[in-house]
Amino acid sequence: MRCRKCGEKAVINMRQHRLSLCSQHYLEWLPNQVQRFIEKYCMFNLNDRVLVAVSGGKDSLALWDILHRLKYQTEGVHIDLGIDEGIAYSDVSRQTAEQFANDNNLTLKVVNLDSDFGETIPEINRRTHRGRMKPCSVCGLVKRHILNDFAQQGDFDVIVTGHNLDDEAAILFANTLNWSLELLARGYPVLPAKPGFTKKAKPFSRIYERESAAYAVLREISYVNYECPFSIDSKQLHYKTILNEWEDENPGMKLRFYLHYLQALNKGAFPWEQDKDEEIASQLCPRCGQPTTTGGPCAFCHLFEI
Amino acid sequence: MRCRKCGEKAVINMRQHRLSLCSQHYLEWLPNQVQRFIEKYCMFNLNDRVLVAVSGGKDSLALWDILHRLKYQTEGVHIDLGIDEGIAYSDVSRQTAEQFANDNNLTLKVVNLDSDFGETIPEINRRTHRGRMKPCSVCGLVKRHILNDFAQQGDFDVIVTGHNLDDEAAILFANTLNWSLELLARGYPVLPAKPGFTKKAKPFSRIYERESAAYAVLREISYVNYECPFSIDSKQLHYKTILNEWEDENPGMKLRFYLHYLQALNKGAFPWEQDKDEEIASQLCPRCGQPTTTGGPCAFCHLFEI
Repeated sequence: MRCRKCGEKAVINMRQHRLSLCSQHYLEWLPNQVQRFIEKYCMFNLNDRVLVAVSGGKDSLALWDILHRLKYQTEGVHIDLGIDEGIAYSDVSRQTAEQFANDNNLTLKVVNLDSDFGETIPEINRRTHRGRMKPCSVCGLVKRHILNDFAQQGDFDVIVTGHNLDDEAAILFANTLNWSLELLARGYPVLPAKPGFTKKAKPFSRIYERESAAYAVLREISYVNYECPFSIDSKQLHYKTILNEWEDENPGMKLRFYLHYLQALNKGAFPWEQDKDEEIASQLCPRCGQPTTTGGPCAFCHLFEI
Repeated sequence: MRCRKCGEKAVINMRQHRLSLCSQHYLEWLPNQVQRFIEKYCMFNLNDRVLVAVSGGKDSLALWDILHRLKYQTEGVHIDLGIDEGIAYSDVSRQTAEQFANDNNLTLKVVNLDSDFGETIPEINRRTHRGRMKPCSVCGLVKRHILNDFAQQGDFDVIVTGHNLDDEAAILFANTLNWSLELLARGYPVLPAKPGFTKKAKPFSRIYERESAAYAVLREISYVNYECPFSIDSKQLHYKTILNEWEDENPGMKLRFYLHYLQALNKGAFPWEQDKDEEIASQLCPRCGQPTTTGGPCAFCHLFEI
């Protein structure tokens, strides 16, 4: 297997693109792909202040590395969720993120759920929900709220997350099986800023997980390489497995599924987003001031009240 | 396992409905379900002349049996496609359909592709396409054209087909994976009449294949119980297998997937149908007079010209 560009020995064969590349050309090719996607969806430009949500996993670190190499103005934020479950998941994640920032002279801020808000994710779960709300839902809500609050306070132009194609295809697949119209209407890789909400972008959303992992390995980035202990049985992992089996049989299937969906959105499928925006913007949480759909506390503040 | 209605021994357990029934109550329950679906979607009423497309398989015969028991005015049409492939598929199918009509004093007309149009499906395939168009696509086109032509000539109010939930869910699944917007916009269980086109309805589209088969067996209907030899490797069968595996794990998943899609359609997802209708209605085939999207011969007539 030879590199398409130089004929040297290839380190990766991407059947979905019918492309094999050596290490050097792969490390050029992937940032180039990301740059094109950023431009195509007008995600941000070199003048914007970009807040990178850094979990310590391969995707967020590879993304931060690429954005830094592409000369974007980035800062990182890591949310320490206080998840231990016998493997010190959050401690190791935070240390990994801090190490990467240190090694690359990048600024990383840490929000600690326990010291800043008084409770960890496992504690919130045990206290409030007793199985009514899944840990992944609580955790997603908490992360979205804190990221937006941090970006608003710090006057960032955009929040970026490391969601890759495998993540996006699995979410899309779940939303399609349920025909969740409001979620299907909001599946763009970029969501514009709204009053109280910072713009959000997912520059990796057409990058396969395997491509992101290969980049991290070739760049010798240390990353946390195990899944969150709470997510191991999640439906999303189940959908990922199904999609991976198809991808094996039909290379590129996952990418086509996602890109055809984006085309469908561009053609006007699921015409709901506008209404939803207006509904959100008309209400503010009396505790934190973030927009919410109800007149009372937002879902995040409600978590700490019940 | 006991019948929910009478406590006698049940013959079928439908996990998707959490319902077990004995033979007698099952044979009442299924027609009742079909009747409710016919009414909900205003498919047809007792004054309408209903043309049943009868292949000789379990679905079309069970459907015809149910419509007859529900006192609808039905006539059947069978299209002899001339498919042999070593198992006399079309001969057996035609004889099975004729036997059912005979046994029940029902009117069945047969359109014979070979004697009426000069060529069978395998011959058309061999002559024209050499792999460019799949047999299932050719066959679908031929059947749609002939059914519509027959219904128009006979002044029927509606054409009904025996597509079951497994068929509809598999088609929907394929159209979703490809985000085929025009097809997704037209996936209703009933398509209204348009100039040159008879109304079409699928009264079985929320009935599981297993429910339809159980009905045919319990009513002692003889039906052709093997798949068309051309369809054995088709993608649709592949999707059916995938959906069946999920259904096993999540009883009712297939039905929810389909019904949530219908709700999405009703809420206005995929707003394309109207434009497509107008485009079709503006052109007529110079050979057969049926509406077409082009100024030249329709796709059916084109098949016999090339």
